[in-house]
Amino acid sequence: MSLGRRLCAEALGTALLLAAVVGSGIMGERLAGGNVAIALLANSIATGAALVVLILVLAPVSGAHFNPVVTVASLFSRAISRLEAFSYIGVQIAGALAGVALAHAMFGEPLFAASLKARAGLGQWVSEAVATFGLLLVIAGCSRHGVRTTAAAVGLYIAAAYWFTSSTSFANPAVTVARAFTDTFSGIRPVDAPAFIAAQCVGGLLALAAAWYLFAVPSRDSSPP
Amino acid sequence: MSLGRRLCAEALGTALLLAAVVGSGIMGERLAGGNVAIALLANSIATGAALVVLILVLAPVSGAHFNPVVTVASLFSRAISRLEAFSYIGVQIAGALAGVALAHAMFGEPLFAASLKARAGLGQWVSEAVATFGLLLVIAGCSRHGVRTTAAAVGLYIAAAYWFTSSTSFANPAVTVARAFTDTFSGIRPVDAPAFIAAQCVGGLLALAAAWYLFAVPSRDSSPP
Amino acid sequence: MSLGRRLCAEALGTALLLAAVVGSGIMGERLAGGNVAIALLANSIATGAALVVLILVLAPVSGAHFNPVVTVASLFSRAISRLEAFSYIGVQIAGALAGVALAHAMFGEPLFAASLKARAGLGQWVSEAVATFGLLLVIAGCSRHGVRTTAAAVGLYIAAAYWFTSSTSFANPAVTVARAFTDTFSGIRPVDAPAFIAAQCVGGLLALAAAWYLFAVPSRDSSPP
Amino acid sequence: MSLGRRLCAEALGTALLLAAVVGSGIMGERLAGGNVAIALLANSIATGAALVVLILVLAPVSGAHFNPVVTVASLFSRAISRLEAFSYIGVQIAGALAGVALAHAMFGEPLFAASLKARAGLGQWVSEAVATFGLLLVIAGCSRHGVRTTAAAVGLYIAAAYWFTSSTSFANPAVTVARAFTDTFSGIRPVDAPAFIAAQCVGGLLALAAAWYLFAVPSRDSSPP
Repeated sequence: MSLGRRLCAEALGTALLLAAVVGSGIMGERLAGGNVAIALLANSIATGAALVVLILVLAPVSGAHFNPVVTVASLFSRAISRLEAFSYIGVQIAGALAGVALAHAMFGEPLFAASLKARAGLGQWVSEAVATFGLLLVIAGCSRHGVRTTAAAVGLYIAAAYWFTSSTSFANPAVTVARAFTDTFSGIRPVDAPAFIAAQCVGGLLALAAAWYLFAVPSRDSSPP
Repeated sequence: MSLGRRLCAEALGTALLLAAVVGSGIMGERLAGGNVAIALLANSIATGAALVVLILVLAPVSGAHFNPVVTVASLFSRAISRLEAFSYIGVQIAGALAGVALAHAMFGEPLFAASLKARAGLGQWVSEAVATFGLLLVIAGCSRHGVRTTAAAVGLYIAAAYWFTSSTSFANPAVTVARAFTDTFSGIRPVDAPAFIAAQCVGGLLALAAAWYLFAVPSRDSSPP
Repeated sequence: MSLGRRLCAEALGTALLLAAVVGSGIMGERLAGGNVAIALLANSIATGAALVVLILVLAPVSGAHFNPVVTVASLFSRAISRLEAFSYIGVQIAGALAGVALAHAMFGEPLFAASLKARAGLGQWVSEAVATFGLLLVIAGCSRHGVRTTAAAVGLYIAAAYWFTSSTSFANPAVTVARAFTDTFSGIRPVDAPAFIAAQCVGGLLALAAAWYLFAVPSRDSSPP
Repeated sequence: MSLGRRLCAEALGTALLLAAVVGSGIMGERLAGGNVAIALLANSIATGAALVVLILVLAPVSGAHFNPVVTVASLFSRAISRLEAFSYIGVQIAGALAGVALAHAMFGEPLFAASLKARAGLGQWVSEAVATFGLLLVIAGCSRHGVRTTAAAVGLYIAAAYWFTSSTSFANPAVTVARAFTDTFSGIRPVDAPAFIAAQCVGGLLALAAAWYLFAVPSRDSSPP
């Protein structure tokens, strides 16, 4: 696979992921008549289902990271080079922003808007660390089962984590940056984004340690660290 | 497989798909007490589940297109002949109309009724292009995983796309024509159908280009373009 | 497998299926605060999930029919003998009744009660024929995919059919008889049961014809008719 | 696998399971606006999805018991030694308590609180016996299908059993002990816990007998009893 094609897959996949997250949040909130649980149910099911599909379709091209923390973990395990990692992260962020604009275009919102939704506090930061820890552990632990099982597991995990974390489980710095630019159901105030991202990094590091101990590999491939 | 048997599978599958879409929409709306999100949750889960099952059962017979855009993509990739494609599209539309009548018979509605539900505007047209783009990309990208994974991916994709597009993701010209004939939850005014179909064609063409670049094949088989 | 063990599996599986159908109906209705769509969402998800699991677990023992129409279809295809078929149907009905009593015991209801819930009319009878037609077509069409796919397909099909039929898709004479003995969410008046069963038989016969034409086998095995 | 690594997997898996159960219960109740069915829908979907993922990820390390009844069944079938079984049960309980504290930390609750939620009565005790009976039968019956199918089946089973039992299907003594320490949606009064655990043991024993008769093995491996 050429790097161009892989970067295209990462950008497209992250864009469609954000379109699914933001779009289903808007639809859920508009239709739910004020019942936030019903909106989140729709949002979590749509996000989980979209993730399964995007990983199935794009993993054979780029590995379907869609997430800088996953890319950095791949870098640590030497599955990709530093240049590739930086390129992946760049297109993930660009793709995520494009996905937000696409969702807004579909729902007649201005293409970008700074979110006013406060998401902060110790509980939410612990949540982001836990959510990212779990996500990376799932990816590392499922590698032996193959891409189809990994896709299913990641989708199920995120759908569940929307509910069992108080932050609704962003677990992804590119997603966090992009969701700062939507003033809808799934948004986060720009000022709250850095702490989320820091917590995600902490969770990711803890996951690498746990995966190294539990599965004897630091990440999704078995090359020596 | 004889062409007669394949056309029978396409007609039956598209009919049952429409019965599922229209029937679950009626049931959801009647029971949801005015909460549209709950009705759409039922509608999207039932549609996604029905799609998975219909593809599993009928793909070995006809390929389980159920969708003129998918059939045209097969024609472009030379997987089927022009005569077969025209026949497929004909029975898809006939089957879709029969499925609407079947749903109406089950729920005590007149067999056909022109829809009064307005579905128009730039946001919804962008949505239909995105929805169809995604659907064809999923089919092309999953071909390497086999029919069972493709069935699961298409069902999950459509269930998600009901929520992340403002049009609730028709993504299928035969479905669009048929849904113009139901004045229930899932209907679309006949006057709004052509723009939806045009947007679906645009999305389909974009998907062929993307699949050609990403997967090096224009559609679901690997014959040279 | 001895016949005793197979009959035990059929009885146990049908009992647990009915416990799932009736129990989740009671729980859904008690908690849903009058919103019938939410109760049916819980009821349909729980029933579909239970079906998948029961088929996975018991199909290797008895074939996991749990349904006289499925057993008769097996008889037509000479997969089982007439004596076995009669025995299967007997324990299916006995198991179904035991499952209703078990659900009632779990929820503090009298063990049996005649249902007062009217379920009748042409639309519902058409629904039962369609539901049973689809169920048998799914079983016949999935046989080539193996038991795990069949289990998933049957569960998804029934969860969808709860919504796209006006009768909520009994599709099973043993289930119909047993549900006449519960005066809760999933009940049916005893006087309405015979017409449901007749419609199910019509749907089953139509499915055998369709499967014979589409898949060139009348039922789930490939022995000559 | 060293025992240390296996115990770590059991502790971590049980902790994350409890975090999912308790956390999604809190989130569901906070957002559902008083509609308990919607809260339980979120709670059951999140729990089932988390179980599938945790079993997929950790079964290759420790067997993914997360449940003293499952561990005792393994002991009966001589799949593990007495020392291993005692160690497993110890870390399951410790992990479960840690998971409750983690959920509370994420949602800003005090780390531990005695539950005030009454869960008692014959119907609920029958429910716990049925729920545990079914769980062990599912594990025994799915062993021939491999770990991926077992994971899916256990998750689907528990999601369904939340609805078809009046106790919402604890089916796990370690989970029961831990849920006595949360005064939120998923809690149980400490005084009610022992009867639940006793009922679970009864259901587990019945399942061993049924599995021995139906599958000719007392538990998940085929070593002689």
